[in-house]
Order: sequence, then C-alpha cells, then structure tokens
Amino acid sequence: MASGRVFLVGAGPGDPGLLTVKGRRVLEHADAIVYDRLASPRLLGYAKPGVSLYYVGKVADDHTMPQRDIEQLLISLARAGRNVVRLKGGDPFVFGRGGEEALALAKADIPFEVVPGITSAVSVPAYAGIPVTYRDVSPSFTVVTGHRSTEGLELDWNAYAKLSDTLVVLMGVRQLPRIVAGLLTAGKSPTTPVALIRWGTRAAQRTLVGTLEDIAETVRQTRFQSPAIIVVGDVVSSRDELSWFESLP
Amino acid sequence: MASGRVFLVGAGPGDPGLLTVKGRRVLEHADAIVYDRLASPRLLGYAKPGVSLYYVGKVADDHTMPQRDIEQLLISLARAGRNVVRLKGGDPFVFGRGGEEALALAKADIPFEVVPGITSAVSVPAYAGIPVTYRDVSPSFTVVTGHRSTEGLELDWNAYAKLSDTLVVLMGVRQLPRIVAGLLTAGKSPTTPVALIRWGTRAAQRTLVGTLEDIAETVRQTRFQSPAIIVVGDVVSSRDELSWFESLP
Repeated sequence: MASGRVFLVGAGPGDPGLLTVKGRRVLEHADAIVYDRLASPRLLGYAKPGVSLYYVGKVADDHTMPQRDIEQLLISLARAGRNVVRLKGGDPFVFGRGGEEALALAKADIPFEVVPGITSAVSVPAYAGIPVTYRDVSPSFTVVTGHRSTEGLELDWNAYAKLSDTLVVLMGVRQLPRIVAGLLTAGKSPTTPVALIRWGTRAAQRTLVGTLEDIAETVRQTRFQSPAIIVVGDVVSSRDELSWFESLP
Repeated sequence: MASGRVFLVGAGPGDPGLLTVKGRRVLEHADAIVYDRLASPRLLGYAKPGVSLYYVGKVADDHTMPQRDIEQLLISLARAGRNVVRLKGGDPFVFGRGGEEALALAKADIPFEVVPGITSAVSVPAYAGIPVTYRDVSPSFTVVTGHRSTEGLELDWNAYAKLSDTLVVLMGVRQLPRIVAGLLTAGKSPTTPVALIRWGTRAAQRTLVGTLEDIAETVRQTRFQSPAIIVVGDVVSSRDELSWFESLP
C-alpha cells in the first residue's frame, strides 16, 4: 500500500481565525488527526465525517503520551495509507518538538509537509498591543522557552540581557523569579517594562504589566497564573496606545 | 459619518495558502486595500468587486510612497467611512513598520485591528527543512533585520554571537560580509552552518548552504541575490534530512 502523507500543522495561538488557509484545507482532507491540548478545539470542526481523532495531549510538563509513541503513531497511520494531520498549538517548529517528529518521519521514509502556524511569540504580544519590533526601539527580538530551566539546563541570561531588544519567553511564568533575577544580575535595567499575557488572542485574554523590578511581586499578589507569555523590553510601553483587542466592543 | 476600521493584515511569506482564515475574511470584506509589493499578488483575488486598490509598494530601501503618506492615506480612507485592509508581507509587527502605522491610527482615533501573518523568519526556514528551535540544539531563536545597518545603526553582533542558538537575519544579503565578519570577530565558530533562502515558500525557492567561513565567498561565486533570509546556527544541518519542500513532486 502506498504510504499516506503527514502534515505537521500549526494551529496558531488560540483565535481560530488565525489558522492558515492551507492548514484548514489539510484538516478538511485528513483521514486522521493527532492533536495536543489545543487553544482552539473548534478547529477539529473542520474535519470530515468519519475522521479518526487521536488526543495525545501535552499539558505543560505532563505528556499524556511519550514523544516516541506519538512519532510511532504518526508512522503507523501513514503506513496504513492514511493522510494524517499532526495538529500542534502555535507553529510546529517553534518549540513543541515538531523538528523531532519531522526527523522521525524522515528516518521512516514517510512523506511529510510542514504547514507553519501563527506563533504565539509574535501574535500574542500583537493582540496585547505590543509590536515585537519597532523602528529605532527594537530592531530585533529573541524567543526563548522558560521551560528549559526545569530540565536543569539554565539559560545564559547574561547573553539575553546584552540584547537591548525584545525578549519573549514562552512557558516561563513558573520560572519568572529566576528569569528576572538572571536578567537583573546580568545588568538589565530594573525599570525595563515587562508584560505577561494569559489566554492571548482569546476572549479571556488578560495582560499584566510591570517592570523587571516589580513584576514577580505583582504576579504573586495578583495570583496571575501560567500559562502566559512574557515580554521584556521597551516595546511593552506601546501597549498604552496600541492596545486594541482588549478594548474591542 | 462613522469612521471605518483599519485591519493591519499579515499576508505571510509568499505561499498564498499561508494567509490566515481571518486575513482572508477581512480581505473579502474590505472596501479599500493598501498594499506593498507582495510575495503573493494572488491574495488580491479575494477582494470583492469594486474594491479600491492602493499600491504603496516598498522595494527594499526604495519606498514608493513615504511612510507618513501611507499613514495619512489609511486615516483618510477610514474617515471616509471605508473598511480598510493594510496588507503587508509576513507579519505586520515583524519589521515592516506596522507598529508605526498602528500608532498613527491610534493617535487619529481610528479603530484598528491586527491580523497577524505567518512571519518569514520562521516559515521560510521551515520550508527549507530548518526548524528554528530544536530540542537540546537550539532552545531559542533571534530575529534581526540586516537592513538596519544601511542606516548607520550598526548592530551589536557581539551580543548575538554570544547566543549559541539560531539567528535569523531578514533583509541582510547585501550586508552579509559585514554580518559574517561581526559574528566571527565576536567569537562565533567559523564552522557554524549558515543557510540563505531565496523566494522562500514559493515554487522558485532556492537554498544555499555553507558556513560562516565560506558563505560570503559562495554567495559571490554563485551570484546568489537578495532578497533572501539568512539562518545561522546548528539547526541548519537538519536540512540534510528534513528538506521536504524542495523535493516535493
């Protein structure tokens, strides 16, 4: 039997309108969909009748299905001749282990395609009124996962602090005190603006703003919870004028 | 008359399938579309009959219409009660001056929304088989514009060289020798893999691979031309196994 094809599809950050046209098309034609806990379960509504759904949900550190088993599932579905969509939050190659899944497919000789998704690293700040780049203020941005620290691989905050531009930290709320301490120790100004955005691009979106000096305490006091995206840098101040989503009627 | 609304819409990197579902919807309803030179002119085909089109094309440094005039155009169209789409390549807030346009609209009290687009910084490497993040290899990525150097604002390559992870440079081909020299002087290994990707996500996509040591010379010899995206970092090696788009039948 001819092998099916696997599409590694980015589901975007939450707003279902941020799926791509191509992502929608491959969802409509999929025989099987293998998905994580999605910010937007509505996307499954695009699937055709009779589609096989496989929930392999990842909830932060707690993987419902081990990564190797997910890869094996994709391979066996494709070998059974089915067209498979592997649906992942955000973009498949911005964290989320899409690279590993693509490599497993390549090694197994399964044809695959990548359908990029809107990454929350850029779009969630945008929905909070924060452009990650802004002429003369921030001509670059860096995206990092705070999650890494939990694996004992401490990031070199010193290098990140040297960049004067925007720093976006995904999955970092639990590590916030360490991140803040790392940046301050490395010489980042205590008055550097910081924003935390929870449920970004969704109706429930909530944003908390402070500075490197006070944000950890504010988070503690307001009991602001993960998951949220952290943005560090002067562009955060744009929010005062550019916040559009949270003021929609 | 009630003011119209302006949608700052990201057109994505070139493959028209990478427009978002929401982007398509607002294009279909727009009374006026103000657009740059697009990687994918086909997107204008979504517009309704009678739509007013305004080409304000930006070709690298050569702005057909000054930025202030573009902002004024958006404001007057909205004040005339029209629903306006400002269509930009990639994502409106990843370079491309979307932040400035949003600010001009905010100051003029024009309601606006941002519809993020697939940024070429992540999707073009993905189409070349390069995940910008990869577990244990690259837990972060930085996106910078090479364009800035042309304005005499030299980037601090020293800080970027300190980051061991992926560096993506947009609009940097003409500056390649300076970028390479900056990174090498700052201590980046000469054997660090580098890829240049031209016409990313389009049928004509072409990728050139080398190292920091030899890439500038290879570009010269092959007369590889801008515009192209530069990726620096170990993830470039993934391409050997993950290149999928360039081998599609």
